[in-house]
Amino acid sequence: MTLTGQSLVAGQWLGQGEHGEFHAFSPAQNTPLATRFFNIGAVELTAAVNAAQDAFLEYRKTTYAQRADFLDCIATHILALGDNLLEQTQLETNLPFARLQGERMRTVNQLKAFANALRENPESPLGLKLVDEADPTRAPMAKPHTELNYLPLGPVAVFGASNFPYAFSTLGGDTAAALAAGCPVIVKNHTAHPGTGELMARAVLAAIKECAMPLGVFAMVQSKAYDISHQLVAAPQIKAVGFTGSFNVASMLQDTIAKREEPIPFYGELGSINPQIILPNKASKEAKGIAQSLCQSMLMGNGQFCTSPGLWLVPTGCDELETEVADNICRSVSDTLLTPGIVNTFKHQINQRVELADVSLLGKGMLEQDFHANAHVFACSADSYLTTPQLHEEVFGPAALIVRYDSEQQLMMVINQLEGQLTASIHGTDNDLTQAEPIIEALQYKVGRLIKNQMPTGVEVCGSMNHGGPFPSSTDIRSTSVGTNAMLRFMRPICYQA
Amino acid sequence: MTLTGQSLVAGQWLGQGEHGEFHAFSPAQNTPLATRFFNIGAVELTAAVNAAQDAFLEYRKTTYAQRADFLDCIATHILALGDNLLEQTQLETNLPFARLQGERMRTVNQLKAFANALRENPESPLGLKLVDEADPTRAPMAKPHTELNYLPLGPVAVFGASNFPYAFSTLGGDTAAALAAGCPVIVKNHTAHPGTGELMARAVLAAIKECAMPLGVFAMVQSKAYDISHQLVAAPQIKAVGFTGSFNVASMLQDTIAKREEPIPFYGELGSINPQIILPNKASKEAKGIAQSLCQSMLMGNGQFCTSPGLWLVPTGCDELETEVADNICRSVSDTLLTPGIVNTFKHQINQRVELADVSLLGKGMLEQDFHANAHVFACSADSYLTTPQLHEEVFGPAALIVRYDSEQQLMMVINQLEGQLTASIHGTDNDLTQAEPIIEALQYKVGRLIKNQMPTGVEVCGSMNHGGPFPSSTDIRSTSVGTNAMLRFMRPICYQA
Repeated sequence: MTLTGQSLVAGQWLGQGEHGEFHAFSPAQNTPLATRFFNIGAVELTAAVNAAQDAFLEYRKTTYAQRADFLDCIATHILALGDNLLEQTQLETNLPFARLQGERMRTVNQLKAFANALRENPESPLGLKLVDEADPTRAPMAKPHTELNYLPLGPVAVFGASNFPYAFSTLGGDTAAALAAGCPVIVKNHTAHPGTGELMARAVLAAIKECAMPLGVFAMVQSKAYDISHQLVAAPQIKAVGFTGSFNVASMLQDTIAKREEPIPFYGELGSINPQIILPNKASKEAKGIAQSLCQSMLMGNGQFCTSPGLWLVPTGCDELETEVADNICRSVSDTLLTPGIVNTFKHQINQRVELADVSLLGKGMLEQDFHANAHVFACSADSYLTTPQLHEEVFGPAALIVRYDSEQQLMMVINQLEGQLTASIHGTDNDLTQAEPIIEALQYKVGRLIKNQMPTGVEVCGSMNHGGPFPSSTDIRSTSVGTNAMLRFMRPICYQA
Repeated sequence: MTLTGQSLVAGQWLGQGEHGEFHAFSPAQNTPLATRFFNIGAVELTAAVNAAQDAFLEYRKTTYAQRADFLDCIATHILALGDNLLEQTQLETNLPFARLQGERMRTVNQLKAFANALRENPESPLGLKLVDEADPTRAPMAKPHTELNYLPLGPVAVFGASNFPYAFSTLGGDTAAALAAGCPVIVKNHTAHPGTGELMARAVLAAIKECAMPLGVFAMVQSKAYDISHQLVAAPQIKAVGFTGSFNVASMLQDTIAKREEPIPFYGELGSINPQIILPNKASKEAKGIAQSLCQSMLMGNGQFCTSPGLWLVPTGCDELETEVADNICRSVSDTLLTPGIVNTFKHQINQRVELADVSLLGKGMLEQDFHANAHVFACSADSYLTTPQLHEEVFGPAALIVRYDSEQQLMMVINQLEGQLTASIHGTDNDLTQAEPIIEALQYKVGRLIKNQMPTGVEVCGSMNHGGPFPSSTDIRSTSVGTNAMLRFMRPICYQA
């Protein structure tokens, strides 16, 4: 499928390279790909923002049923891209075909879930409308009729993730939620999979035309220049920002957003080490099973899931568990990561850990190619963990740290020192869990999702899901990026009084 | 009732003047009051913050029923202060006794409304819990059991308003909502009514003891030094800020908050001119009635309500309406405003308007004392309004501006140029309202509450209320400061998965 390398602005494909260009990269071949992608210019970005604002005046008037049809239509056009989409994404990410098929289905289902939610409650988001009836006889003042409903915020800027090229990217959760809410979207496409972004934008454009939506309701801009991102979030017409990516990029965008005259929500999803707490009885009774599950969950997507378990809290002396971990890790085979930059950072962090005196390397996987990342599991005592801030950092890729605790008290100290996390799991027998109630009480204040006896990878798309957690895992703890409640992050209440 | 002039920190009354002192002011006498209030020091404020964090570890575990009892108990102790409270507040604010009685009742009812909401839904705030059942048979992956609920954010800083010494101040909406949510509160008391704040703090302390709540769950600090406010919102333990006050103070606090490592919600309620749109048929058929209602609403509390109607959009040529307005305003009697600073600003703004070439003074009230503020109503054409940004500013006090529009198109231009507002009202006959549908559609995006044929003053405390609006009327459009939904501003979602 021929790619233009251009940006989609108000239904037009723009960009000829006058503002520079970039190439995608093949992680599998460790070489740049041939297609040129053209940086969008400041003038064209302004046009996209203006078109989004114009489109908002129309799009906000659409009925929930019309929006639902539009979302379904986008889903249909994603599927109509067929294997071309999967092949392009595999080229750009080296993620396995089956994984990409699964993620595409999840992305399509996400659009449909919002569509269904809109149809089920055609008068207010998720049926949240509240009415208080008038009482003209009330003394000393008559009671008015008041009705609480929700309005879309306005045009939304979305920054896609590298690690989920479908589900958290161009047409991922934030885009689907914003369109469901009645907000136009401008996506700054991730430069690691620009071709995927272009194909996805084609799917939306086809749906826009089929559903006769305003052309400015969706734009996709390509650029490797940071100033474009900052121009986008600084634009007065933009009323919210969705972001999935690194802490550093998020901080820079947040600084720009803080300088705006009008404060707007910034929904940044950053990083998380997703602690796994193995309680004593579980650790001794199911040592092998737990060890295998931990390794399997961590190795999923070569450790590049936002919910990848990076910290395993295990009672001191669980030799069987640790041996099984070491065996599993040593048998694991290396693979590429999403970008060469991610591989470099991973290797740098691994080397740092190797050099730490109080940390031992429990096992590492086979390294098949120099440009691959192979799995590493380290281990240290809780005392070392508590006194070594470097060990609290996320290592993005196939790595985990076993922290051995001697007592419930020491476990509590580690939990109290944790930064905010997307998720944590607590693995225990019924007895364990009863005894660990104070641990669980404390742990819930550190996470957005608290899991019992399950691995954190695999985020269910449903009404009761919450994806997002205390800072620094998210920049706004009050909102989920997954599940139908996510549309509320792009809406706000209004009271109608009569 | 003897006042200590001190701050309440972890159950102790602190401060002897070692960090400076200040006096309250009698607006009625135009002189400072005798009682000395002692600025709290940085060390004592840190103690309050630490005590709030310690208290959070206990308070967050209380059941909803326990919190409800605590709120009811606070309400009881407010009433137990008796007329002493009303007298102290009248001394400090010169608000009429009957008005203060009403506001006290509203404040007490607000606490009880949260208490009732907690009792009605003892398992999740306002019954928002969502459950998705497990499905172990689902292919390819078993579906987990997930349950969405809400946790309190942590210690909250509250900055009270000058204009509602009860309902939006020490024990006002934000404090009640935060305590209902499970969050300890540190109130920076408003320096215009410090004695009122001290009495209110006594009521909470009595309730804390009676209900055996942790002492750090509520602190009230007195200070005229700005750095104390900044220290408070910068403290890492503080997880949200509620503020009612001026744009300038809010901007400074927002800057400090933006420098925090962890972003936190800042719920600032700033200013609003609350536009009143009088449609043609209504203006001609009910000229006198509308004019009287507008004047009455604007004069309420001498123009110091946050929902005071400051901009009246009236069809050109409504002589009867304008004459009636002029008559009402000219008959009105001056009174003090809440502080000498507010009087000065008011007079300065009035003088600026008087000097504008395109603006005429329709009428002004009698000025009984030099230090009073008397009502002023100005008038200008829509063209002048559109081209004179100075006229878009809020004048806090008894002032309004009539803007005469020639056509629906011109009315739409004015609405499109409006900044965000807490409220707007549209006054029309059924015919008017049908014809004005595009106006109403546009207007709702400018306001937090859209009112038909009623005045904006008087905010109903109920589940479907929304108080807060687009910037600059509020700094966070996603949340209400009035009504039971307000407790959600101090909570955040969590998913429990098993």
